[in-house]
Amino acid sequence: MSDASSSGSLVVVGLGPGDPRLTTPDVTDALAAATDLIGYGPYIARVPDRPGLTKHGSDNREEIDRARHALTLAGAGRRVVVVSSGDPGVFAMAAAVLEAVEHGDPGWRELDLRVLPGVTAMTAAAARAGAPLGHDFCAINLSDNLKPWALVEKRLRLAAEADFVIALYNPVSKARPHQLGQALDILRPLRPPTTPVIFATAVSAEAEKIDTVPLADAVASRADMRTLVIVGSSQTRLITRERGPALVYTPRSAPAESAS
Amino acid sequence: MSDASSSGSLVVVGLGPGDPRLTTPDVTDALAAATDLIGYGPYIARVPDRPGLTKHGSDNREEIDRARHALTLAGAGRRVVVVSSGDPGVFAMAAAVLEAVEHGDPGWRELDLRVLPGVTAMTAAAARAGAPLGHDFCAINLSDNLKPWALVEKRLRLAAEADFVIALYNPVSKARPHQLGQALDILRPLRPPTTPVIFATAVSAEAEKIDTVPLADAVASRADMRTLVIVGSSQTRLITRERGPALVYTPRSAPAESAS
Repeated sequence: MSDASSSGSLVVVGLGPGDPRLTTPDVTDALAAATDLIGYGPYIARVPDRPGLTKHGSDNREEIDRARHALTLAGAGRRVVVVSSGDPGVFAMAAAVLEAVEHGDPGWRELDLRVLPGVTAMTAAAARAGAPLGHDFCAINLSDNLKPWALVEKRLRLAAEADFVIALYNPVSKARPHQLGQALDILRPLRPPTTPVIFATAVSAEAEKIDTVPLADAVASRADMRTLVIVGSSQTRLITRERGPALVYTPRSAPAESAS
Repeated sequence: MSDASSSGSLVVVGLGPGDPRLTTPDVTDALAAATDLIGYGPYIARVPDRPGLTKHGSDNREEIDRARHALTLAGAGRRVVVVSSGDPGVFAMAAAVLEAVEHGDPGWRELDLRVLPGVTAMTAAAARAGAPLGHDFCAINLSDNLKPWALVEKRLRLAAEADFVIALYNPVSKARPHQLGQALDILRPLRPPTTPVIFATAVSAEAEKIDTVPLADAVASRADMRTLVIVGSSQTRLITRERGPALVYTPRSAPAESAS
């Protein structure tokens, strides 16, 4: 099963946020060489069917089972590609695969294993709004399935104190309807009420929607499972335009007094 | 010059970390439609010459002058592409362009202006090492050209307290030889000495070099201008292998006591 001399391989890829024009040629090539695709159903549905390709769709839970399945197939000689949206290393399948490697069959460590980067949701959303990530920033996964909510709260407070721009991944799901509202409640007294908050939903897909609102008016109901939220720093600015929506950016510079 | 009805346009793109197979088709299309490329010389040298394309190379300082030049050409009806490495919104040209828009000719606000995302150095480096960004993280630009060094120090301490994985952009340059050493000195007492530190240099280019060392042994001389440094959190782990370098990853989960 896990003979390191077999010709099997495992490649963990990110398709980017949605539009195929944001998928790198490196990932496209890996998909073309695969015998088996493993991933969340809607992601592998983005890859065209072809003879010789078996798709193993699953729901969006049980990432570790999916990782073990992929490793087992690769150990048996298959060319397996594990498919994530965005970048596979940012709150996606790459960490799950490596958890499975560390705690699984020792032969899995010697497999031909690669991770191919992609355009992550945060930079895709930022590009649509302007350049909100132009200065120091952090990314926090709001899901508390695998970490205590108190840790998320602690990180939000420290990130505000550091005056990071804050990208919030997985802001809301059916099973977790309250986290984003609580996060915004924590940040509201710590940033100016005019701080731009970007709700970027379904970026680069047909249903794309980019809303920028002041923190004072930012409510969790603007987000769904396809939303990436970016909360500006104290320095983030809006440029209004006669045509089209305002542009949001965070200047490269920070004033001297910001260090105190 | 800045007639909004002109056919000029300005697109700010990121080529990705180096390998053309990591450049998105969206960016490749924008480059193919350009009349003028503006950017740091080595970056625009990565784009093949062709008839009808004028390249305006510059050194890597004076980003704001470069931005104004691009806006002026776009206002005059040219199809201008501003070229960054990595993602243009992460410590690159997009914020400089928007600073120039906000403070420049009011007509620039009405230009056809787009930002196209790319694979940023942090996720490309992470992919080569495994999945170190699998849990909450931050990105700090170590250049203090435009912000006080005391602010960088403050952010490093707060990021350590938050137990973020920390990506350090622009860790060193000829004009700034001491910042990375100082940053590592700040972090060393705040993280376990075994914490993995990744020095990822020239990722995806021919000269690529990925070194992972314990924080206790991490010295600034391992980095040059092409290096991205990732400092693990308290939870980041190493998987040793008989063949090939160790894999580095940060588990998706965090223990309950990490919130205290």
